[in-house]
Amino acid sequence: MKVFERRIRFQEVDAAGLLFFPNFLAMCHEAMEDFCSGLSGGYAGLIQQRRLGLPCVRLASRFDAPLRHGDLARVELSVGQVGTASLTLRYKFFREAILCAEIEQVVVSTDLDELRSRPLPSDLRALATGHLEASA
Amino acid sequence: MKVFERRIRFQEVDAAGLLFFPNFLAMCHEAMEDFCSGLSGGYAGLIQQRRLGLPCVRLASRFDAPLRHGDLARVELSVGQVGTASLTLRYKFFREAILCAEIEQVVVSTDLDELRSRPLPSDLRALATGHLEASA
Amino acid sequence: MKVFERRIRFQEVDAAGLLFFPNFLAMCHEAMEDFCSGLSGGYAGLIQQRRLGLPCVRLASRFDAPLRHGDLARVELSVGQVGTASLTLRYKFFREAILCAEIEQVVVSTDLDELRSRPLPSDLRALATGHLEASA
Amino acid sequence: MKVFERRIRFQEVDAAGLLFFPNFLAMCHEAMEDFCSGLSGGYAGLIQQRRLGLPCVRLASRFDAPLRHGDLARVELSVGQVGTASLTLRYKFFREAILCAEIEQVVVSTDLDELRSRPLPSDLRALATGHLEASA
Repeated sequence: MKVFERRIRFQEVDAAGLLFFPNFLAMCHEAMEDFCSGLSGGYAGLIQQRRLGLPCVRLASRFDAPLRHGDLARVELSVGQVGTASLTLRYKFFREAILCAEIEQVVVSTDLDELRSRPLPSDLRALATGHLEASA
Repeated sequence: MKVFERRIRFQEVDAAGLLFFPNFLAMCHEAMEDFCSGLSGGYAGLIQQRRLGLPCVRLASRFDAPLRHGDLARVELSVGQVGTASLTLRYKFFREAILCAEIEQVVVSTDLDELRSRPLPSDLRALATGHLEASA
Repeated sequence: MKVFERRIRFQEVDAAGLLFFPNFLAMCHEAMEDFCSGLSGGYAGLIQQRRLGLPCVRLASRFDAPLRHGDLARVELSVGQVGTASLTLRYKFFREAILCAEIEQVVVSTDLDELRSRPLPSDLRALATGHLEASA
Repeated sequence: MKVFERRIRFQEVDAAGLLFFPNFLAMCHEAMEDFCSGLSGGYAGLIQQRRLGLPCVRLASRFDAPLRHGDLARVELSVGQVGTASLTLRYKFFREAILCAEIEQVVVSTDLDELRSRPLPSDLRALATGHLEASA
C-alpha cells in the first residue's frame, strides 16, 4: 500500500461545492504517477522514453462522502492483481477517518506507438508485486 | 436516448496523446447537463435555484478504444432505471462506428444544503422516464 | 470577428462559485480552435499533420465581471495584427450586454518538432487577415 | 519570495505535448493557495469562513520556454505591491536554471456575498508585506 496525500484545490470543486467526481479519478492518476516514482525515470520516463502507457480499460467506483475545497485527501493505493500485461489497482480516499470513495481500475501495459498490449516490464512488475494486497 | 456530440479539445488529451480517461467522465457530465436542458432552468437551475444536485455514487466503465484531439465524439445517453431518489444513466461513446467506451453511473437526487437524498422532482422523473431504455 | 458561444459548465467554477480565471484562457483556446475550423483539417490537422503549433508567448487580460455556472458566454475573437510568424488575437467575453473580460495574446507559429518559429502558413495568414480588426 | 515546486502531470500537457498555457495560470493559483497557508485557516478558510475571495482582475504574462510532462517546475511567488484592497503578485516559472514564464497579476480582496471590494484583512496584509520584493 502506498499513501498519497494532498489538499483539494480551489478549482477542483464544482458548482455544488463538492469535489467534481471525475477529479477523484484524476487524483487516482496522480497517485499512480506517484507510485511509479519508484521506477527509474518515473512515470514520465515510462511514457516518453520507453513509450509504454498504462491506459485504464475497466473502472468501478463508489462514492460515499464528498470532499471539499481545502480538505486533506488521503489516497491509499494498493495492487489487487498482477497479470501478464495488466494491473488491478485499488484506491481508497479518506478525509480523516471517513472513507469517501473506493475505486478499482484495470490498466493495461500498452505500446504507445502501436497501441497494442505488451507484457509488463520487469521493474514495474516487481514494484506492483511488492504492493500486492495481503492475501488471506 | 439523447445524443451529445462534440470534438475532443487540444487540452483534453494527456502526454500519451489520448483522451485522459477522467475526461470521458467529465464528458458524461456534460451530456447529463445537456440532457437536463429539457428541465425549466436546466441543470444550473436545479443546482442554484432548487438546491438539488445529482452526485454520482456508483460508476462502472469500460474503455475499449481511444479518442484523440480533434475526434468527433458521439455520446449516447440513456436511462437504465428510475428509482425513488436515484437514476441509473448509461453513456456510450462512439468515434464514427467504433464504440470507444461504455459508462454506467448511479446518481442520487440530493438536497445540497442538507446533503441528504430527496425524491426525484417530478419534472426530472418525467424526463428520465421518457428516456428509459426500451425493455424487451 | 468570429463569435464563439457556450454555457459555463458545472465544473468550470471554483469554490467561490465563479468561473476560475484560467478557464477564461482555456475558453480563448476553444474559440481559437473554433476559428481554425476555417482551415482544411482544422486546428487538429495543423498540430497533427502539419506539426505546426500556435503557442502563446504574451498574454494581457482584464477581468471585469464574473461568469457563473449556466451563464451563456459569448466570446468575440478578432485579429489585432498579423506578423511574419505571429498573430495578435483579441477576445472579448460577454454575458448578455456585460463585458466580462478582455484578453489579448500573441501566438507564434511554431514547428513542433524543432520548437522553432516558422512563417505563418498561407491559409492561416489569409484566414487571419480576413478577420483583422477594422483600422480607422 | 516563496517557492512552490511540483512536477507537471500527465494530463496537464496538450496535444502538442507542452504544458497547456492556462495551466501555468492554474499553477499560479496553487502557488497562491500555498502562500496563503501562512494564514490561520489558510486559503480555504478565507473563502469559506471569512467569505473573502481574491479574484484576478489584471494579468500579464510572457511565456519563453515550455514545460513538459514530468518536468519539475519551480514557481517563485513574490509580492510587487500591497494596495488598500489589492495585491500585485509576481510568479516566475523555472525548469532548472531556465526561466520559462513570468506572470504578474492583480487580485482584489472581495466580499464573496456582495461581490464588492473590501480592504485587505490585516493578517493577509502582514503576510503580503513580509514578501514584498526588495526595493532598491
